[in-house]
Amino acid sequence: MKKTFDVAIIGGGIIGCSIAYYLAKEKLDVAVFESQQIGGKATSAAAGMLGAHSECDDLNLFYPFARSSQLAYLHLQEELKEISGIDIGLTHGGIYKLAFSESDKMQLLPTISLPTVDWFDADKVRKSEPCITSNVMGAAYIRDDVHVLPLSVCKSFSKSAQMLGASVFEFTNVLDMHKKDSSYVIKTTKGSFDSNLVVVANGVWSSTFFQNLGLEQKLVPVKGECISVFNDGVPLKHTLFHDHNYIMPRKNGKLVIGATMIENDWNEAPTLGGVEQLIAKAKSILPTITDLRLDSYWAGLRPQTFDQRPFIGTHPEQDGILFATGHYRNGILLAPATGQMIRDLILQKEVRKDWVEAFKINRLKPVLSRR
Amino acid sequence: MKKTFDVAIIGGGIIGCSIAYYLAKEKLDVAVFESQQIGGKATSAAAGMLGAHSECDDLNLFYPFARSSQLAYLHLQEELKEISGIDIGLTHGGIYKLAFSESDKMQLLPTISLPTVDWFDADKVRKSEPCITSNVMGAAYIRDDVHVLPLSVCKSFSKSAQMLGASVFEFTNVLDMHKKDSSYVIKTTKGSFDSNLVVVANGVWSSTFFQNLGLEQKLVPVKGECISVFNDGVPLKHTLFHDHNYIMPRKNGKLVIGATMIENDWNEAPTLGGVEQLIAKAKSILPTITDLRLDSYWAGLRPQTFDQRPFIGTHPEQDGILFATGHYRNGILLAPATGQMIRDLILQKEVRKDWVEAFKINRLKPVLSRR
Amino acid sequence: MKKTFDVAIIGGGIIGCSIAYYLAKEKLDVAVFESQQIGGKATSAAAGMLGAHSECDDLNLFYPFARSSQLAYLHLQEELKEISGIDIGLTHGGIYKLAFSESDKMQLLPTISLPTVDWFDADKVRKSEPCITSNVMGAAYIRDDVHVLPLSVCKSFSKSAQMLGASVFEFTNVLDMHKKDSSYVIKTTKGSFDSNLVVVANGVWSSTFFQNLGLEQKLVPVKGECISVFNDGVPLKHTLFHDHNYIMPRKNGKLVIGATMIENDWNEAPTLGGVEQLIAKAKSILPTITDLRLDSYWAGLRPQTFDQRPFIGTHPEQDGILFATGHYRNGILLAPATGQMIRDLILQKEVRKDWVEAFKINRLKPVLSRR
Amino acid sequence: MKKTFDVAIIGGGIIGCSIAYYLAKEKLDVAVFESQQIGGKATSAAAGMLGAHSECDDLNLFYPFARSSQLAYLHLQEELKEISGIDIGLTHGGIYKLAFSESDKMQLLPTISLPTVDWFDADKVRKSEPCITSNVMGAAYIRDDVHVLPLSVCKSFSKSAQMLGASVFEFTNVLDMHKKDSSYVIKTTKGSFDSNLVVVANGVWSSTFFQNLGLEQKLVPVKGECISVFNDGVPLKHTLFHDHNYIMPRKNGKLVIGATMIENDWNEAPTLGGVEQLIAKAKSILPTITDLRLDSYWAGLRPQTFDQRPFIGTHPEQDGILFATGHYRNGILLAPATGQMIRDLILQKEVRKDWVEAFKINRLKPVLSRR
Repeated sequence: MKKTFDVAIIGGGIIGCSIAYYLAKEKLDVAVFESQQIGGKATSAAAGMLGAHSECDDLNLFYPFARSSQLAYLHLQEELKEISGIDIGLTHGGIYKLAFSESDKMQLLPTISLPTVDWFDADKVRKSEPCITSNVMGAAYIRDDVHVLPLSVCKSFSKSAQMLGASVFEFTNVLDMHKKDSSYVIKTTKGSFDSNLVVVANGVWSSTFFQNLGLEQKLVPVKGECISVFNDGVPLKHTLFHDHNYIMPRKNGKLVIGATMIENDWNEAPTLGGVEQLIAKAKSILPTITDLRLDSYWAGLRPQTFDQRPFIGTHPEQDGILFATGHYRNGILLAPATGQMIRDLILQKEVRKDWVEAFKINRLKPVLSRR
Repeated sequence: MKKTFDVAIIGGGIIGCSIAYYLAKEKLDVAVFESQQIGGKATSAAAGMLGAHSECDDLNLFYPFARSSQLAYLHLQEELKEISGIDIGLTHGGIYKLAFSESDKMQLLPTISLPTVDWFDADKVRKSEPCITSNVMGAAYIRDDVHVLPLSVCKSFSKSAQMLGASVFEFTNVLDMHKKDSSYVIKTTKGSFDSNLVVVANGVWSSTFFQNLGLEQKLVPVKGECISVFNDGVPLKHTLFHDHNYIMPRKNGKLVIGATMIENDWNEAPTLGGVEQLIAKAKSILPTITDLRLDSYWAGLRPQTFDQRPFIGTHPEQDGILFATGHYRNGILLAPATGQMIRDLILQKEVRKDWVEAFKINRLKPVLSRR
Repeated sequence: MKKTFDVAIIGGGIIGCSIAYYLAKEKLDVAVFESQQIGGKATSAAAGMLGAHSECDDLNLFYPFARSSQLAYLHLQEELKEISGIDIGLTHGGIYKLAFSESDKMQLLPTISLPTVDWFDADKVRKSEPCITSNVMGAAYIRDDVHVLPLSVCKSFSKSAQMLGASVFEFTNVLDMHKKDSSYVIKTTKGSFDSNLVVVANGVWSSTFFQNLGLEQKLVPVKGECISVFNDGVPLKHTLFHDHNYIMPRKNGKLVIGATMIENDWNEAPTLGGVEQLIAKAKSILPTITDLRLDSYWAGLRPQTFDQRPFIGTHPEQDGILFATGHYRNGILLAPATGQMIRDLILQKEVRKDWVEAFKINRLKPVLSRR
Repeated sequence: MKKTFDVAIIGGGIIGCSIAYYLAKEKLDVAVFESQQIGGKATSAAAGMLGAHSECDDLNLFYPFARSSQLAYLHLQEELKEISGIDIGLTHGGIYKLAFSESDKMQLLPTISLPTVDWFDADKVRKSEPCITSNVMGAAYIRDDVHVLPLSVCKSFSKSAQMLGASVFEFTNVLDMHKKDSSYVIKTTKGSFDSNLVVVANGVWSSTFFQNLGLEQKLVPVKGECISVFNDGVPLKHTLFHDHNYIMPRKNGKLVIGATMIENDWNEAPTLGGVEQLIAKAKSILPTITDLRLDSYWAGLRPQTFDQRPFIGTHPEQDGILFATGHYRNGILLAPATGQMIRDLILQKEVRKDWVEAFKINRLKPVLSRR
């Protein structure tokens, strides 16, 4: 078993696997350490909406980052298919961000102002999606927001990285790491490994390493629960989105209904209360959904930072340690751009200064949080 | 493959398997024909409450039949375990039939009048089950109502019957049957079989054969949906019952929440609307249930007759044909008594006259239905 | 509920749904009656290989029919996606029909003679697929053989048909049908329906109706068992095929391993013996497959006719009855061509005479069967 | 949330939960920290054989410990049912430890010498279990070896402990612990807790803490894979055991087939190779098992110490730390005795000296290992 690497990545979710892929392409010698199975945690719980527009209300800084990541997916589809044989399930169709009231509509104004977004009034919305509730007032139609199958993306990153020479260790807990000479010793349940660089990328569990690395930052889990139903009869072409909830038509004929927001809950299983809330919300958007057959249910933990922006960058004091975590609701969307940014930081290529500042782990907490 | 039998039973649910067991014990040569798998339909969807008291408001005729069946289970537990190695999962504990209003309480009066039933006021109920909603007014405590694992009962009947010489044909559709000389030819997907007697016992699908046998009776499906949750923390010892709904603690630590009543729905899968209704009802009884993790969900079709009493008996005109179907909400409860009654009819033993009259398939429809 | 139709199709598998789709496109008023769920039986058990070349050794008659069906899928992909929103999962990649001996190679000669097929020697095969056993002697590389997701095809046919006006009745058993005046009365568990034409298309269970319709033909079930594994590390791009067995890489990163051939077994569940046989065969082709994690297992019943060709055509004597069944190993491959042929027969369009003769239900049994 | 405890137990498997139960009964204030769900790892993978005789060839020391644990289960059954409502699934029936050769029989001699064990020759074995292979030479019949449902035992310990006042934290990773004044600060993903005593009881992952606590001992995972089948027709009353493999009849009518022994494999999922090996072994014992339907498959990691005896006792130097791990193949069997021994060590009750010596973590490695 290979024991020495250029870069060790802790966490085999979509973020860690994206980084592994982009580094392996540059012929760096990469290892991914995953405590369970590749993509088995928050990644496989995500619906996979690439909502560069629907999730971003900060148009100057966060939106361009998200948008570049969204566009990267268009290239990745073929690239990853070619190398790994796995299809990422990219689906076009666009999103309707619904408004049920004037106040809803007000909140959509910045989104509507984007060149690729249109305002549809109730008639137009219901002509296109006749099963939507008649309570709808209109919708921002975001034609560029697409979705992917998150677990397939993660597996295609992971398998492609392996085909390019990376090592992926599943069921391997990282117990500890410490500097020795110019590199790091990483102690795991599978023995010790050496690596010049370490990237901490294991979602909400990254906090574990913050402490040991002398950092006081925190990640708070925000649990999201989802259900899916078999849609054998209701026509629905667009993802319907309202107030952090959505109904997304999958290419396999199912609808995904998501997602609750339970702050500070580490329990990774859906509760009866969560399911009830999802059904109530879905019904208020698409009344006939109650006739559909239940297919499945699941949950995952979003890693939330104090300002809901990810931590992407280097350790402020300790050489050789990088972070790529805290992606909150947007891990799937931001995976390619995060992988590219970490690659560029490692290869000392140019990276947009405002992104470096915005995502560095030791950025200042605003006196008044935006939430 | 054996091709000639004394008795052919159509339907390998709990009713058909109980009959097979009681006949095989008498050394009759029995075959069971099941289109799918033993116990795979309504049987495995049932919660298994043996509610002789909770389900019966007719104390003169139906209650004694149900009660005799309930008591038969006490013997069967050991008997079936010994022969088949399968445990039927008999669980004591009793049922609380809850009252939330004076009118609820009025409806419980006949039940409370039974010698084995007590009235508990709100304090007493909540002392015993502290998590019940404070809206409860009281409960009829039916200490003798127990429950079983329906699929285990069915499999232990089936396997015991086989150990005693019966033949069980799974994945075998009965296509047609007709009299030839003094016996019946039964055409199935596995070929033709001969049998002196035929018992139609395939639940709501028994209607199929009614037509061919010149009968106009009908069975209407009443779909019931259920969910189960993992109960790792809430204390609950008794089954809570209200208005056809129940929360039942299983010996494996799960709670079963049932069941909806969707008349005339043949779809055997639970819908989102059904699940929503179950959660709402469960919450109104046991508020903390919303914190529990969802485990599973399923549905089944109860076979309902015009007066909600089963059809148990012989064909009014055609020799050699018997019926044992239409058990509605009470298939699990009534399986032993039904098996015994069919056995006694076949062996020409004495059977209570009022039961014969009450359950015969050609009984008269009341001018005003009881419902 | 609509009660009168132009065409009633018995069976909601891929054959029945394809017919429904092609007829609904022609604005015929179509109903599909499915006893369980759409595509739930043999359709969802199939791997979905469109082996026009790999399955056909009769190059004059059967191959052109299969090939036309295979090509139809290329158009259907977009067409069905557009109407139903469901993707049929068409995957290119080609098949390696492996030879382990000279005798294997001899059997491949007709296939190799086709213009779209090449012979690869062992070196070339192992260069392209380095994990194949070193025992391989060579392979016929059939570059045009692709595969689809059978359940997705079936659901996209079914939903598209519905979007075009068809009615699909799930959980609906057809009990009986008889002619009344110029149309048929179809008795089902959901009541009676009238239809001018009836198409019997319910796979191996079609036999049921043969008898009632005065036919002596038979369908014999040939059970096929499959397993799938998670392939997170082994590179494999082509389907490997040998002696009715195959290892097929799915676009989601899994490998499907199929399929056993158990004649006259109606049991729709995989046995331990079947799984053992699949693993042994897979290991003999791809030795490292034993390291992969088991994902799932299932089985289905192929409907086999006396000469392993389907029954597609009209009843020899009874007007208004058609058959589309007996597709044996090739139901997925032949679904589009079958749907088109039934459509053309109904609309009295031209149909190739040799196909009509070859597939008619009352064709003569050869004195010596080809098997 | 309560933050200060008398005893913190790391690990919510059957060992940790047994300890919690026995301590909570003594009114100690106990917390269990489980990184996933109660009993979700090795516990739920175990078959639950209480093989005091079948697993122990050391009759002086290990057997009495195991036997006392086995006997404790007889009391626990009622006790845990009463408190938690959960049934541990204790099943009598006994084990046949099979011999296929003289050498097999030689190895059984110490077992046969026990007063509760008998030697049955081939005839007697096959008379009792007619489906066993005719290759069998005889068997040690261990009538006192019973089995339980491991997950039910674990959940009943956990829930009973909670009913008695214990706190159980699921989905809670312990990140670090250190002494502060006279107690321990335990850092977890749910925040920091204080406890006077800490018990390390998280199976093969306990190694993590050995390092931090200055110990050089190691635990090696020995992966065990299992499958289960539906047994609807084969009579089998006793567990059949040969060479670390077994076929165990469950009370629900299924057979559990286990278990492989894959040393140093951390992967918690069954592979195709493992399943193949299990089927081959099962077939060699019970040939007709290949006809049975596959039900499920799973795997778990046994924590193995250098001499295959558990580590139960106090830290050799550091006050307040205890260990209860390394139970290898016998975690279910030894859970009650381990819980009692830890309780007695904590309460400074008398504990057998030879057990203390045999199980202390700093015992000497023999110059020649027994394996």
